[in-house]
Amino acid sequence: MWRLALRAEVIGVGTELLLGQIANTNAREISTALATIGVDVLWHGAVGDNLERIEKAVRTAIDRSDAVVITGGLGPTSDDITAAAVAAAVDRSLVRDERLAGLIRGFFEARGREMPESNLKQADLPEGATPIEPEGTAPGFFVEHEDTLVFCLPGVPWEMEAMLEKTVLPTLRARSGEAVTVSRHVLTVGLGESALAQAIADIVEAQTNPTIAFLAGGGTARVRLTAKAETTPEAEALIQPVEAAIRARLGRAALEPGEDSVGGVFSSIARGNNLTVATAESLTGGLLGAHLTEAEGASDFFAGSLVCYSTEAKREVAGVDPAILEAHGAVSAECAVALAEGAARVYGTDVGLSTTGVAGPARQEGKEPGTIFVAAWVRGRSEARRVQGYGNRANMRLVAVNSALDLARRMILDANR
Amino acid sequence: MWRLALRAEVIGVGTELLLGQIANTNAREISTALATIGVDVLWHGAVGDNLERIEKAVRTAIDRSDAVVITGGLGPTSDDITAAAVAAAVDRSLVRDERLAGLIRGFFEARGREMPESNLKQADLPEGATPIEPEGTAPGFFVEHEDTLVFCLPGVPWEMEAMLEKTVLPTLRARSGEAVTVSRHVLTVGLGESALAQAIADIVEAQTNPTIAFLAGGGTARVRLTAKAETTPEAEALIQPVEAAIRARLGRAALEPGEDSVGGVFSSIARGNNLTVATAESLTGGLLGAHLTEAEGASDFFAGSLVCYSTEAKREVAGVDPAILEAHGAVSAECAVALAEGAARVYGTDVGLSTTGVAGPARQEGKEPGTIFVAAWVRGRSEARRVQGYGNRANMRLVAVNSALDLARRMILDANR
Repeated sequence: MWRLALRAEVIGVGTELLLGQIANTNAREISTALATIGVDVLWHGAVGDNLERIEKAVRTAIDRSDAVVITGGLGPTSDDITAAAVAAAVDRSLVRDERLAGLIRGFFEARGREMPESNLKQADLPEGATPIEPEGTAPGFFVEHEDTLVFCLPGVPWEMEAMLEKTVLPTLRARSGEAVTVSRHVLTVGLGESALAQAIADIVEAQTNPTIAFLAGGGTARVRLTAKAETTPEAEALIQPVEAAIRARLGRAALEPGEDSVGGVFSSIARGNNLTVATAESLTGGLLGAHLTEAEGASDFFAGSLVCYSTEAKREVAGVDPAILEAHGAVSAECAVALAEGAARVYGTDVGLSTTGVAGPARQEGKEPGTIFVAAWVRGRSEARRVQGYGNRANMRLVAVNSALDLARRMILDANR
Repeated sequence: MWRLALRAEVIGVGTELLLGQIANTNAREISTALATIGVDVLWHGAVGDNLERIEKAVRTAIDRSDAVVITGGLGPTSDDITAAAVAAAVDRSLVRDERLAGLIRGFFEARGREMPESNLKQADLPEGATPIEPEGTAPGFFVEHEDTLVFCLPGVPWEMEAMLEKTVLPTLRARSGEAVTVSRHVLTVGLGESALAQAIADIVEAQTNPTIAFLAGGGTARVRLTAKAETTPEAEALIQPVEAAIRARLGRAALEPGEDSVGGVFSSIARGNNLTVATAESLTGGLLGAHLTEAEGASDFFAGSLVCYSTEAKREVAGVDPAILEAHGAVSAECAVALAEGAARVYGTDVGLSTTGVAGPARQEGKEPGTIFVAAWVRGRSEARRVQGYGNRANMRLVAVNSALDLARRMILDANR
């Protein structure tokens, strides 16, 4: 039997979203989480701190969705009006929750600070709502109206995430039955989106469950396979043969499964081969190391980075031969190789990675923005790759990071053959 | 005379947004840009690759907005259906634009690649639409319906940004007259959002234009002042006295104006004082250097970073005295100071910055996640600061980055007094 999946809508509240001062990353986090329990997010929205427009957006969402998750506007200041707007949308009045009021008072007392009386408005919830205890200082709540569950969570990402995990997901999982959506990715580096799509066009054509889509950015292109079924194993069984066919077609261009980023795949290969790693970075300014240390436990294999932004630092800190800089410049395959070797030598690691290039917008050493060289040194063997960066400065730096990691990955895997 | 500002809506198209696979950063970029020309963005939305829901969202947007900016779904694959959905929403048919078709053919010919016939669908626009030439491979377009301008741009951020700049902004500026919205920020580090709000509550109460709001994250809290007027100088004149009053109240806690990030403010101070800078990073793994090199021209003052993730690297690469590591551990004020000194010594710079701490989720050296020490060494004087990280691992690393930069900023400014 195939159950109908719950339909959900995610609404961000806050004029800062509409002014572009922050990106709505909460919508992304919530969508990812709801997908794992088989809830279909069909709409995202954002509105400013305006009572009428919030109320209208919530009414529309209640009409068309089974679940609405609202973030933001639950703080103590006068522009925090989400609770009032939701109360209006569900035709109820605001009532003070005395237990929450006590928690808020206690928070200030415990810190020996005086509580502005206005903070107690955070304990005012639509009548009949279920309070969600604060993770930081703002409480959340949820309320049911016309068979739709409306969740209100703070806009601060980590407070939102904790409530999502502890309250929203269990509550919705209990309603949605066993329907699940499972997504798997096949990640590639250095292939364009069109080339990737063309390479597997016939496999894509033949599919409806899983559905297949393409995502590109930062020098990577990924295939996303999304299957729906009653249980996770059933969804995985639908994906498995299609993913296998795609991986067989792409060969080494498809990164190893199990990790969601090039940094994650590389880290897992380095760990699996007992290789220690260091980097020497020019145009990425530390970003390559930052990617390798995003997840906990990187100290298992990652020693550190030499960020050598100036030519002098390349010479003095990473030990690049002045003759190389003289003959080829800092933006060259030769310099990239010397940097990778330097990183491995200085940190005494098995692997050294490097990046150098022109992130733009101006030219450098007479070279165009987008001219990027990455190199890897793996136990005595070194290789460089010329990569074409594209897009803005931030994207070019990502292209460099991902290309360096992919080059080292291929060298390690090839050495194992 | 006060002209009514144009009301705008931004819609992202793509199931990848609803599955949470990417954040809708396009909405942010577009909102920021529209604000600068006085267009009020009142709604953000996102819908999947579903003809009916895209059409519905566009119809709703046309009903309530003067301008609609849609991103995504303009590619060559079968799930790219934005043009068809917009055509339906404005009650027109799709017509091939032969000039665009020629450009697309030419793109493939120039690269000696065979063009899949399906790519020509990118030249099919709603009747009467104005084409926007491709920046990458996907063309855009705009069409007017019931006095509303509907712009369709590709989802790839840099292609979208180029069309926004070249076509959307000039077209809307011509319609919106001279009304502008200007925002200014007062950035603080180390103050909580509530403490900041309390410190300037009376100033906030007294204001309606500019409006004042608070934004927090990554160890920073900022006050945003937004004024509307007919011209930019008039809007700035409204903001100026209020901003001055806030800065006077906050003193050194308010970062210097002119830059939008702590890294930007610090970079500008370092440049202004002719100070060269290097960093030695543990828990931030390179992120501090990456922040300092986000903008072009960092090589003026930034030499590089020593990322010393392992204890061995702290000793061998940054030259931290083993006795310090023995007595205090790597997560200590003493180690932070030694790292900052080490960075300045190795790179021969005037300033050294450092970070060390526990980003979590696990404890380290018996210390809780969120235990962070940052230090700065400025021409022979050093100082460390114990900072409390909060939120998830990524947020804790941002707290460390911003705290280190702020500490060095204060030391440099204090030395100048």
